[in-house]
Amino acid sequence: MGKVICVGLGPGDPDLMSVKADRLVRSSTHIAYFRKAGYEGQARKIVNGMLRPDAIEYPMEYPVTTEIHFSDPEYNRVMAEFYEVWAEKLAVLAETETVLVLCEGDPFFYGSFMHLYTRLREASTVEVIPGITGMSGCWTATGEPITWGDDVLTVVTATMGEEELTRRIRDTDALVVMKIGRNLDKLKRCLTAAGRLETAWLVERGTMTDQRVHRISEAPAKVPYFSIAVVHGQGRRP
Amino acid sequence: MGKVICVGLGPGDPDLMSVKADRLVRSSTHIAYFRKAGYEGQARKIVNGMLRPDAIEYPMEYPVTTEIHFSDPEYNRVMAEFYEVWAEKLAVLAETETVLVLCEGDPFFYGSFMHLYTRLREASTVEVIPGITGMSGCWTATGEPITWGDDVLTVVTATMGEEELTRRIRDTDALVVMKIGRNLDKLKRCLTAAGRLETAWLVERGTMTDQRVHRISEAPAKVPYFSIAVVHGQGRRP
Repeated sequence: MGKVICVGLGPGDPDLMSVKADRLVRSSTHIAYFRKAGYEGQARKIVNGMLRPDAIEYPMEYPVTTEIHFSDPEYNRVMAEFYEVWAEKLAVLAETETVLVLCEGDPFFYGSFMHLYTRLREASTVEVIPGITGMSGCWTATGEPITWGDDVLTVVTATMGEEELTRRIRDTDALVVMKIGRNLDKLKRCLTAAGRLETAWLVERGTMTDQRVHRISEAPAKVPYFSIAVVHGQGRRP
Repeated sequence: MGKVICVGLGPGDPDLMSVKADRLVRSSTHIAYFRKAGYEGQARKIVNGMLRPDAIEYPMEYPVTTEIHFSDPEYNRVMAEFYEVWAEKLAVLAETETVLVLCEGDPFFYGSFMHLYTRLREASTVEVIPGITGMSGCWTATGEPITWGDDVLTVVTATMGEEELTRRIRDTDALVVMKIGRNLDKLKRCLTAAGRLETAWLVERGTMTDQRVHRISEAPAKVPYFSIAVVHGQGRRP
């Protein structure tokens, strides 16, 4: 009897992988990971040079990423089918082997693996290992603590409607914004409306070798997918 | 020239420490950590058996923890003095040595080190290494993903006023509650008022050997300091 282990690889720096993740990555013979078709994939990139020479790799290529909007029923249909197919493949493999699924950040925090997890867990043994989140990597990169004392932290995605996003930004001490990509201009308008543009930071590729940290007001017009915005809490401190 | 390195040790399981943390803990000769007077200290406990035999330890014992309420000016005075004294000691040491400060979880996420950090960074070189947060350890322990799709995650402390806490619980998809301790009854009332008691979980000592996971409605009346409550988001999923 094998199993499926999904391991959080952390924010990008391989040195920030957990000891457990490091050991599993170096010893596993069946390794699966998500990626956009035609790309190496972020998770795979993190473990470069760490895999056994005889490791068998299973790149799970998203059938769509942003070509179809997630509100389109077609997006849902195509993605559901993709997860069904891979859940089935991994379940068959896990009858006899241990399969390691690589995941950036922390798997249960906005991770794609969750969609396999819900389909796998009835039939297979599935283990999930937490990792350092991308947001921890990003706020550490700013050199300022994110939450003090009794600060409220709100984590939102920039895909949210403008009015609601502005309201959320106003109604929190500390803020993290995920999934920025094409929504950067909207996010800047919301931060401005909430009076928080000047204290907001943008971190591109936090903890990776090409990490960049900007005040969001000075950020470039185009930012990579692995960008996170941060507004630090200013709570109680002796 | 030495420096101060604060390393996040993660949620409790030593195997969830980062590779970098593990290496620093095993190689450092000057190791400082916070603890309550008369206790071993959670951070110190995580690294049991890992320190060099010649490592010099600097337990930084809180002058008060809950004996004085944090709203009392005396609490502030005593704690400020405590942080001043230790910042000074570490700064002197860091003139010639590298000092490792151990911190549970992620140092910039509600960590005590931040109070040393703001006092140290003008004079000394200070490096901070993120870790897996306690909350990641706890939501992974529940076996359910915390955020899906565009879920909003709100992190609050149970020290907050009842009305405000209830409002925050109503106004989010996913919820994490820190600093529960003596506020468990209040938290239960707020969850009930917000209609979310039955979907809330309580995790005691997440990822540690004596971890316990309960529905919060079935949790014991007294819970340890290292307890976190979780309500999972139910967002979009193909």
